[in-house]
Amino acid sequence: MAALEPPRSPTPELLTPGPQPLGEFERIARFFAPLAGPGALGLLDDAAFLPGPDGDEYVLTADAIVEGVHFRPGDPPMQVAQKLLRVNLSDLAAKGARPVGYLLTTSLPPACGEAWLAAFSAGLAADQARFGISLLGGDSTGTQGPAVLSLTALGRVAAGRGVLRGGARPGDLVYVSGTLGDGALGLQVLEGGIAGLDDADAAFLADRYRLPQPRLALGAGLVGLAHAMADVSDGLLADLGHIAEVSGVAAVVEAHLVPVSVAAQAVIARAPAHGQAPFSGGDDYELVFAAPPHAADGVRALADALGLRVTAIGRVEAGAGVRLVDPQGRAMPVTSTGWRHF
Amino acid sequence: MAALEPPRSPTPELLTPGPQPLGEFERIARFFAPLAGPGALGLLDDAAFLPGPDGDEYVLTADAIVEGVHFRPGDPPMQVAQKLLRVNLSDLAAKGARPVGYLLTTSLPPACGEAWLAAFSAGLAADQARFGISLLGGDSTGTQGPAVLSLTALGRVAAGRGVLRGGARPGDLVYVSGTLGDGALGLQVLEGGIAGLDDADAAFLADRYRLPQPRLALGAGLVGLAHAMADVSDGLLADLGHIAEVSGVAAVVEAHLVPVSVAAQAVIARAPAHGQAPFSGGDDYELVFAAPPHAADGVRALADALGLRVTAIGRVEAGAGVRLVDPQGRAMPVTSTGWRHF
Repeated sequence: MAALEPPRSPTPELLTPGPQPLGEFERIARFFAPLAGPGALGLLDDAAFLPGPDGDEYVLTADAIVEGVHFRPGDPPMQVAQKLLRVNLSDLAAKGARPVGYLLTTSLPPACGEAWLAAFSAGLAADQARFGISLLGGDSTGTQGPAVLSLTALGRVAAGRGVLRGGARPGDLVYVSGTLGDGALGLQVLEGGIAGLDDADAAFLADRYRLPQPRLALGAGLVGLAHAMADVSDGLLADLGHIAEVSGVAAVVEAHLVPVSVAAQAVIARAPAHGQAPFSGGDDYELVFAAPPHAADGVRALADALGLRVTAIGRVEAGAGVRLVDPQGRAMPVTSTGWRHF
Repeated sequence: MAALEPPRSPTPELLTPGPQPLGEFERIARFFAPLAGPGALGLLDDAAFLPGPDGDEYVLTADAIVEGVHFRPGDPPMQVAQKLLRVNLSDLAAKGARPVGYLLTTSLPPACGEAWLAAFSAGLAADQARFGISLLGGDSTGTQGPAVLSLTALGRVAAGRGVLRGGARPGDLVYVSGTLGDGALGLQVLEGGIAGLDDADAAFLADRYRLPQPRLALGAGLVGLAHAMADVSDGLLADLGHIAEVSGVAAVVEAHLVPVSVAAQAVIARAPAHGQAPFSGGDDYELVFAAPPHAADGVRALADALGLRVTAIGRVEAGAGVRLVDPQGRAMPVTSTGWRHF
């Protein structure tokens, strides 16, 4: 999720309005961006930077998730905890930062009792061990509405070396990690919207939706290689659109190069209406980044060392906006935009 | 408000159960304290400490406020913003830290539209100017429930000099700033529960509830003077109880020394049932601290320099718990405990 930003940044020439309230981007630009101070990068990035010790900077990011919007009321609390933590760690990964810790505020309805809390905290504990972080503080309140969970994550990166959104330059190649579209299709699976899918494929996609894998090692390894980076939380075109917009460049994505999992391919073969998911679906929490051609060997070596799929999908050009093209270079229409709240 | 803690820490020998869910303190101790890492002080304090640059530490604190719990649905959004910011700044003040900036996540229902947001951000802007801080980042989400606003505030203090809860020692004097009970009585005024009050008194009390004055200059000035400090957010006896508990000492408060405003005195004269407000009411956001007798001159000089009322109200002794005593040293019963959500 983006820092004080709507689920997507529209590139008006290609994307039609989604179900989100119109003008949210403008509202935030109008009401919150003027409040941004030193280190906040004008709220144009996913994170803020503050001076740290030992030649490092702290990277800070905050995201909230709401029951019924970002997670389903019946979702296992352990996975809710892990998703909350991981969407924030994904923002740190996209800056090349290594995570340190987090503050957590919970506003829970009476229905979230001790059993819920026990499972929720077990999820946090498991991920703390996995990612080498710990809880720094927070607040615990009650609400009569849906649960709202807000988390501020802190990471560290060598001062001046954090990878921002704004550094993409014409001539850069555009890469993504992993496969795209799985998160959005996983939500469809959980909503019962995809019939007749193989059990293993259904489980894979649901897991991709519920348990993001923040690409922390990749992000940290891309410090010094990538010019610009974001995580794919709102959809490839939207998040690459952020990079293009803040960098003042255009990005071209070759649709046939975008990596799609076997499970997602099975869904799309069965239901072609889902064919936009790899481009416009959200919740993948992969990294999209721009790197110069001379960094290609370094990117490849890093991906190999991590055993992680990293795919070149396009290029950066002078201009503005994001274009999706077919193998002949023809612009493809995009009819679904970004991630949809359910 | 306290870090991942309930509205009060009961001192069982004196305090009877309030309307909060029983066992919340234990739930947090059970589910969240085990997750606390280096710098989190076992979640026993209001804040965490992380190494910073230039010989400083960062002080971090997070609090959330919920519509219908911590603020009233019709409250002016500008004041909601300022209260949210100030309850967090009050936690920084209680550590002796100077504020730097904050991250904000908002989960707003559709009813909080552009006019609401405009006033809310105007409140933030006014307080940013007042306190010399700025917005660092955050997240903006929607909810169908009540508004939930979560804020993480960052401050700085010289490394190792932050004032903790745990440093009170037998022989220390106990002080409070300002007057106590105003916040709780202000809420009563706003709820229409106090009839026949002078307009000016009513306005004073309502303002005390809606617009806390974080005692940042006092807190920073007490670095090196105070042994232990907390803000009075949950009520004097509860917050001093935190200090006593974490310090492993007892505290004695002389009831007749606790400073009460003229407006609060007028309420209590009219409605003696409110007589406990200075001891048990919350939302005052004054500082309560313990300092050794040899610091008394320094405390007095600081208070004079700031033009702020600072009153010695009791002492620290060996033992445990908080006792409220009359002028003859006899224990006084306390029938109302801590701050009540409305």
